[in-house]
Amino acid sequence: MSLLNKTLEKIEPLNEQMMTVSKERVDFLLKPVGSLGVLEEIAVQISGITGEMYPEIRKKAVLVFAGDHGVFEEGVSAAPQEVTGLMANMTIAGKSGVGALSKQAGADVFVCDVGMLGEVDPKSGILMKKIRKGTANMRKGPAMSYEEAILALETGIDVAERAIRNGYNMLGTGEVGICNTTPSAAIFAVLGDVDPGELTGAGANLSEEKMVNKAQVIRDAIALNKPDKKDAIDVLAKVGGLEIGAMAGVMLAGAAHKIPVVIDGFISTASAAIAIALNPDVKGYLICSHASAEKGAAFGSEFIGAKPFLNMGMRLGEGSGAAIAFNIIECALSMNREMATYGDVGLGVV
Amino acid sequence: MSLLNKTLEKIEPLNEQMMTVSKERVDFLLKPVGSLGVLEEIAVQISGITGEMYPEIRKKAVLVFAGDHGVFEEGVSAAPQEVTGLMANMTIAGKSGVGALSKQAGADVFVCDVGMLGEVDPKSGILMKKIRKGTANMRKGPAMSYEEAILALETGIDVAERAIRNGYNMLGTGEVGICNTTPSAAIFAVLGDVDPGELTGAGANLSEEKMVNKAQVIRDAIALNKPDKKDAIDVLAKVGGLEIGAMAGVMLAGAAHKIPVVIDGFISTASAAIAIALNPDVKGYLICSHASAEKGAAFGSEFIGAKPFLNMGMRLGEGSGAAIAFNIIECALSMNREMATYGDVGLGVV
Repeated sequence: MSLLNKTLEKIEPLNEQMMTVSKERVDFLLKPVGSLGVLEEIAVQISGITGEMYPEIRKKAVLVFAGDHGVFEEGVSAAPQEVTGLMANMTIAGKSGVGALSKQAGADVFVCDVGMLGEVDPKSGILMKKIRKGTANMRKGPAMSYEEAILALETGIDVAERAIRNGYNMLGTGEVGICNTTPSAAIFAVLGDVDPGELTGAGANLSEEKMVNKAQVIRDAIALNKPDKKDAIDVLAKVGGLEIGAMAGVMLAGAAHKIPVVIDGFISTASAAIAIALNPDVKGYLICSHASAEKGAAFGSEFIGAKPFLNMGMRLGEGSGAAIAFNIIECALSMNREMATYGDVGLGVV
Repeated sequence: MSLLNKTLEKIEPLNEQMMTVSKERVDFLLKPVGSLGVLEEIAVQISGITGEMYPEIRKKAVLVFAGDHGVFEEGVSAAPQEVTGLMANMTIAGKSGVGALSKQAGADVFVCDVGMLGEVDPKSGILMKKIRKGTANMRKGPAMSYEEAILALETGIDVAERAIRNGYNMLGTGEVGICNTTPSAAIFAVLGDVDPGELTGAGANLSEEKMVNKAQVIRDAIALNKPDKKDAIDVLAKVGGLEIGAMAGVMLAGAAHKIPVVIDGFISTASAAIAIALNPDVKGYLICSHASAEKGAAFGSEFIGAKPFLNMGMRLGEGSGAAIAFNIIECALSMNREMATYGDVGLGVV
């Protein structure tokens, strides 16, 4: 059986029994019931994910996937395409946004080339798993083949499983890939049946006029390629991206191995939509971090049923929101571990 | 000159020149301009507060003030009044919400009795600065005298200055005080000229019926005491609380000593409204943390012009939101310190 199918088959629903026990415990903590809001929900969710009453995060990492996009030539980005490779290198050096924020959170960062145009310096520390040199221009044909889409998913699974074997038990998803808000919007346009104009934002500070073009490019790509919204791999292949597929793979692996995966902004959410389409049980293993300021993000979060809790006006991507959210998740676990209960002080629950 | 007046006179506006330089640097970091949203704003603000380009938080603490409220006898709380003392003791032991969350954030917690009904065990570690044994019932007369209100403010200043002398250069405000959402709502009703019904929420899970009563109690207290909205100390004295005054004092001291003060939810925000009324320049020194789920909180944040960035559905108080927000502030400073600039990589700003 293929790695993808093996992984999909391994995924189980959350441990409902443990969630019930955990919720009882959380409600018994010395505070008005429900008064720690999202922290309470996260604590219960992670108990459901891990099957543990007091889960502990031993090691955490943001897995950053890098890929380029043929659709760049349609003028859908404000930044030059060389920036993908540059940001991959700055990230592995800890000098990008996600690099700086991971350092604060005590998280490691791994960078994996799944489809950059440029070559990777083998000494850089970047994992070399290039599937192809950028996707094809989806306005002229499918971004990649069906087989390449599966390979992107499996590369994400593989990188995540390597991290899990090395003791990481919380993962965040990140990406660098100039113009990847375009395939992300395309994925939601197909899966959510909406016009790309409603999903197309400024990305890296694109002008108003170019946004109109960006929406049209997506409309054209969908009309030409006719992705089958019932087949997420077909959608990923025709209008997606290599790093988007790899991040979806990380989510599948996290779910299969019962560890939480923290998703970032708009692009991660597109990956989540793909992963959930492949197996709806994946959703329980995902923790949504921030409400990205990128235009389609609110649609995306609602589409996958996620409630972002950081309202920071961020739209950098890279996994930066996931790195910040690691802190909040540690807060939830600290609440669970450190707080006294009503029982400890001999009081009734308020 | 009194400690209060000395402190008020010391407060200066933010260092605009340093904020301009800091904003230039933040815009030059390797990311689309503005794409790290609130993190960018916080970094610039803390440069304006400290006058430093790369401010560093050496030690941080949540200062938790404990007080009781005479208005409790009007049936405005779901929790028994003994809980104030209990929570003060649990907090100093690190076992309350703010205790657990401060531990995660690497912050210390100090607890100070400014007006609990019960006696403090001198061995508990709680700072003993009781001004009076709870406020009076504001439905029957002023909650405290004008002099006591000043003393509450000065106690907050004193406790904050002691922490600052000991090397703490970021403070959060917290409180325990059963039924203190009632005086908080009263303060906003007076300063913001709105009906208490619009500000009165569930506190610690109050029933719908009792919320109607709670609003009426506040209306009665305002009608009877006629607080002068032009005189914040008069408002604090007549319908406020001792711990609310002390937290306002911490904000004044933070501003006077040029360190950031992180405010928590609804009750902290009422303190902030008092502090800002005493000196509008205080506002620049405050960092708002979470959007509390307590009903009046959105009004309060808007009233003081704050934009909470944590959307966690929390309504515990104690300083719990401030403790969580410490993480976010460290993220902002890490961004500033660790990220490369466009100059480093020889690119133009996007």
